[in-house]
Amino acid sequence: MSLKVLGILGSPHPFGGSGMLLRCALEAAQREGAQTKLLSVYQGEIKPCQGCIQDEEPHCRFPCIFEDYGKELLLEINEAQVLIFGTPVYWYAPSGLLKNLIDRMTCLENMVAYGEPSYMEGKVVGIITVGADAGLTLAGAYLLTTLNAMGAMVPPWAHAYSRKAKGAIYDDRAVMDAINVGILSVGLAARLKGLPGRLSYLDDPQLLEEIRQKILAQKEAFEKEDGKTKAPESRP
Amino acid sequence: MSLKVLGILGSPHPFGGSGMLLRCALEAAQREGAQTKLLSVYQGEIKPCQGCIQDEEPHCRFPCIFEDYGKELLLEINEAQVLIFGTPVYWYAPSGLLKNLIDRMTCLENMVAYGEPSYMEGKVVGIITVGADAGLTLAGAYLLTTLNAMGAMVPPWAHAYSRKAKGAIYDDRAVMDAINVGILSVGLAARLKGLPGRLSYLDDPQLLEEIRQKILAQKEAFEKEDGKTKAPESRP
Amino acid sequence: MSLKVLGILGSPHPFGGSGMLLRCALEAAQREGAQTKLLSVYQGEIKPCQGCIQDEEPHCRFPCIFEDYGKELLLEINEAQVLIFGTPVYWYAPSGLLKNLIDRMTCLENMVAYGEPSYMEGKVVGIITVGADAGLTLAGAYLLTTLNAMGAMVPPWAHAYSRKAKGAIYDDRAVMDAINVGILSVGLAARLKGLPGRLSYLDDPQLLEEIRQKILAQKEAFEKEDGKTKAPESRP
Amino acid sequence: MSLKVLGILGSPHPFGGSGMLLRCALEAAQREGAQTKLLSVYQGEIKPCQGCIQDEEPHCRFPCIFEDYGKELLLEINEAQVLIFGTPVYWYAPSGLLKNLIDRMTCLENMVAYGEPSYMEGKVVGIITVGADAGLTLAGAYLLTTLNAMGAMVPPWAHAYSRKAKGAIYDDRAVMDAINVGILSVGLAARLKGLPGRLSYLDDPQLLEEIRQKILAQKEAFEKEDGKTKAPESRP
Repeated sequence: MSLKVLGILGSPHPFGGSGMLLRCALEAAQREGAQTKLLSVYQGEIKPCQGCIQDEEPHCRFPCIFEDYGKELLLEINEAQVLIFGTPVYWYAPSGLLKNLIDRMTCLENMVAYGEPSYMEGKVVGIITVGADAGLTLAGAYLLTTLNAMGAMVPPWAHAYSRKAKGAIYDDRAVMDAINVGILSVGLAARLKGLPGRLSYLDDPQLLEEIRQKILAQKEAFEKEDGKTKAPESRP
Repeated sequence: MSLKVLGILGSPHPFGGSGMLLRCALEAAQREGAQTKLLSVYQGEIKPCQGCIQDEEPHCRFPCIFEDYGKELLLEINEAQVLIFGTPVYWYAPSGLLKNLIDRMTCLENMVAYGEPSYMEGKVVGIITVGADAGLTLAGAYLLTTLNAMGAMVPPWAHAYSRKAKGAIYDDRAVMDAINVGILSVGLAARLKGLPGRLSYLDDPQLLEEIRQKILAQKEAFEKEDGKTKAPESRP
Repeated sequence: MSLKVLGILGSPHPFGGSGMLLRCALEAAQREGAQTKLLSVYQGEIKPCQGCIQDEEPHCRFPCIFEDYGKELLLEINEAQVLIFGTPVYWYAPSGLLKNLIDRMTCLENMVAYGEPSYMEGKVVGIITVGADAGLTLAGAYLLTTLNAMGAMVPPWAHAYSRKAKGAIYDDRAVMDAINVGILSVGLAARLKGLPGRLSYLDDPQLLEEIRQKILAQKEAFEKEDGKTKAPESRP
Repeated sequence: MSLKVLGILGSPHPFGGSGMLLRCALEAAQREGAQTKLLSVYQGEIKPCQGCIQDEEPHCRFPCIFEDYGKELLLEINEAQVLIFGTPVYWYAPSGLLKNLIDRMTCLENMVAYGEPSYMEGKVVGIITVGADAGLTLAGAYLLTTLNAMGAMVPPWAHAYSRKAKGAIYDDRAVMDAINVGILSVGLAARLKGLPGRLSYLDDPQLLEEIRQKILAQKEAFEKEDGKTKAPESRP
C-alpha cells in the first residue's frame, strides 16, 4: 500500500506562494509513488486550544474535546505517514491559524500521558515557508523543532523557503528545494518500510520546470473557477 | 495625564500562571502611577489574518478590515503607551490565538506603506511567558523581536518567565521579574516623557509578597464568582 | 561493520552536566552495537572561520584551509555516520567554541559548490543541551535546524536537555531522554542500512540507573586521575 | 560629555558587508553627536569561556579571569553607553568568535551575584547582521534577546540586516536601516540623559547616499593600504 502524504497549508490563499510550493512538494511526492492530499487550515474552523493539559483532571487526548474542522485535520494527520507543512511567514512564524492547529496537535503527542506512544512518533515531516522578507529560518526552525519534539523524524534538507511571496513559484532554488522536500520525506518514510527511496538531494532542472508548469496550470484553472463563483472585487 | 498600560493575555485561563504573573506586572505598573487595563484574547473572536498585504491593491491598514473583537484589541493597543503581553507557552511559542492578534497587528506597522510612521513606533513592550517545561526563551525572544520590528522599544529585563505553570505565582524569581517588567516598562515610557521613572532592576521581597497576596485574593474572588455562574464541571 | 557514532562535546568540563548526558547517550549507542568516540572542542585549537566562502575565488572546501585541531574534528565528523552534539547552554546557544566548529563545518556542506553532495548528507544527528536556567530549546532548535540544513537527518525525540547544570545526571527525565538520543539516532542510521534498529522512545528505569551508575563511576575515576596531575586550585 | 558608542564587529573582513553597514551606523551615530569607536573580535585572541559560573567558588566577575584581547573588549564595553554589534551570519547565528565574546560578557551580567547591578544594565544596543541567504532574523533575535537579558535596552527598529553579503552597502533599505540603528540607539541613550534625541525612523535618501559614499571611500583607502602590506594572494 502506498504511503500517505498530507500537505497542510497555513495560508488563506490556496495558490499563493506557500500554496504553490507545497503543491510542488506534493506533486513530487506523488511521482515517488505516494498518495497525497492537501488541506488548508483556512477551510474551516479551528477552535483555539483550551490548555486542558493543565487541568486537574487532564482530558487532553486524541482527537481533542472539540468537534470542529480542527478535529478533521487531526484525524487526517493521524492517518498520514508523511506531513508537509506549507505556511506563509507572518511575523517570523507560521500563521496564527496554523499555530492553532499546532496547539491542538498536543493531543496527539500527549497520548504518552495515557501510556501510549505519541501518535506523532515515527511520522516524517517536511516544511515549506514563504514570505516577503525575513524570518523564514526562524519559522522553519520552529516547526521542525516542535514536530520533532512531538516524535516526528526529519529527512535531509527538510525545509524549503522562498522570500519571493506570490512569486515563489518562479524562485528556481525554492521550487527545487520544495520538490526535494517531497522526494526526501517520502524517501525516508519508504526506506523505513524497507522500500526503495531517495535520500540525497536531487538537482533536476527539467523536473523542476515540468512540475512548475503543472502547478501554474492548476492555478490558472483554480482562478478561472474561482472567478465564476466570486465577484472580481472579493478576496479569493 | 498618566501612562496607559495595556496587558494582553494570551491564555484561556484568566488566573492561570501567565494570567497571574501578568496581573503582578500590571499591579506594579499601577503603583508606579500608570493606568492599567487587562484584556484577554480569549474574550472574543479574533479572525485570522487574511494576508491582504500581498494583494494587488493592499488594504492592510489600521484598524484592519474585520469588525470583530480583534479590532477592539487593536484600537486599545493603539491607545496604550505600554504593552505587556502575557502568554502561556504552547509548543515553544505564544498561543495560537495570541499569534492571530500578532498577525492582525500588521495593520499597525503597515501604516508605513501609507506614508505614516508605524503606529507601534515609540511604544514600550514587556513580555511574560509561563509554561510547564521548555521553550520560554524562544517564545519570549519571538515576541520581543517581533514587537521591536514593528517599532516598539524594550526596557531592561523585559522578559519574565516561569516554568511552574499554574504555580507560577509561587515562583519567587518569576514574580519579582514580572513586577520588574511592570516597573521598568512604565519607567522607560515615563523617562521618555521627561518624567521620573525607574530603569534598574528592583529586588524587593516585601513588595513581591504584597503583590502576590493581592493577586491571590483576586484569584479567590474570581473563582468564587466564577463558581456561581458555572457548573463545577465546566471549564473556567 | 558497526556504525560509527561521534560525540562532540562543547563544554570545558569533561564531566559537567552536558559531558555526562552525552556519555549516557554514547553508552546507550554502544549497547545498540555502535562504535563510539567522544571528542571535546576544548581539547585543542579551533581557529575561527575566515568566511572564505565569500572570497572571489572560494576555497571553502573540506577539510578547510586550517591545519589545527578543528581539522582533526572535521575529519572525524566526516567518518562518522551518527553525530551527537552535547553542549552547555551559554546565553541560549552552544558555547562559542562549539559555534566555531559549526562555522568550520561549512566546508563539509559547501562541497555542493564543487559538484559533490554535502558531506553531511545522510548523517544522523542528536543533540544534548544542559544549562542552569533558560534557552535550552532555542539552543537545541538552533543545532537541529543548522545540521538539517547541512543535510543531516533527525531521529524522533532528537533533543535531550536538562536545566540542572552539574546535577543533570540526577535529572531522571533528561538521562532517559539522552539515552534515547543515543538509541534512536543509532536506530535510524541502522534502519537506513537495512539493519534492525529502534525508532520509538524507550522508557526503561533500570537501564537508566545502570547507565547513570556507569557514568558516575567514570566521573569518579576521571576526577581521581585529574587530581593527581593538577593542583587542587586549578580548574579541571 | 558626549555619548560613547562602541561598534563591535564579528567579521574577519573589516570592510565586508557587516563591517560596512556597521560603519554606516557609527557614522550616523557620530553625526548625532556621539563619540564612536569600532573594534573587531578578529583583532586579537578571545579565549573561550571556561564556565566558571558553575564552579564551587564562582569567580565569574568583571572583567573575567583571562588576560587577553577579550578583556580589552570587555573593558571597552563597560565604558560605552551604546553598543552596536555587527556580524556576518554564519549558520543563522553570530560568528563563533563573536559568540565567544558574548559568552565572556557573562562576567558583566554576573555582577548581580556580587550584590551589584548588572554592568550591562541601562546600556542601549543595536544589531546589524549580514548574510548571503537565510537566518538573519534568527541571528538578530538571538542577539537582542541575549543583550536584553543582560540588562540592555532596545530602541525602536534595533535590527538592520541585509542578505546581499559583500554587496550590502548597495542594499538601500539595509543601509537606511543601519543608519537608523545608529541614530535611534544614540537617540534613546540621549533622551534618557534628558538630552534631545530622535526616536522615530528617519527616511532620508540623501543622508543614505552621503554616508554610503563616505564608507566606500574608507573602504578604498583601506584596501590601498592593505594592498601595500600584504601579498595579493593573501587573504585580507
